[in-house]
Amino acid sequence: MIKARVTVTLKNGVLDPQGKAIEGALGALDFSGVASVRQGKVFDLELEGADRSKAEADLKAMCEKLLANTVIENYQVEIA
Amino acid sequence: MIKARVTVTLKNGVLDPQGKAIEGALGALDFSGVASVRQGKVFDLELEGADRSKAEADLKAMCEKLLANTVIENYQVEIA
Repeated sequence: MIKARVTVTLKNGVLDPQGKAIEGALGALDFSGVASVRQGKVFDLELEGADRSKAEADLKAMCEKLLANTVIENYQVEIA
Repeated sequence: MIKARVTVTLKNGVLDPQGKAIEGALGALDFSGVASVRQGKVFDLELEGADRSKAEADLKAMCEKLLANTVIENYQVEIA
């Protein structure tokens, strides 16, 4: 069993209204000094088998096809 | 300027229908061998100042108050 974490974040320059809303909410809660907030997604996957290089290739294919919108998002694959 | 990443994940035992849906969709795309998927959130923050211990304390307070629902979610703070 291979455990992996995929992190999907917005590319630089892509507007992030959700992050802006969180930034505003933190200000309203008296947290000063927050210069920017950007929100992304994280996926924790468990894959059967023990072939780490196959797992990494599969995870990248999953990102390209489903987990990330590569027009506006970057992804990063980490295998534990 | 301090850059930090906060990762918020569901606690063990908390149902994750979104993760289950992704697991199903990966199966439908012919990715076999996916044993489980759990989805979480990631926040990339930029904080003013250079005091890392204050930043870490602030980030934990932000998680407790806004970023995470500590009844059902765990959070993890990493300062770059």
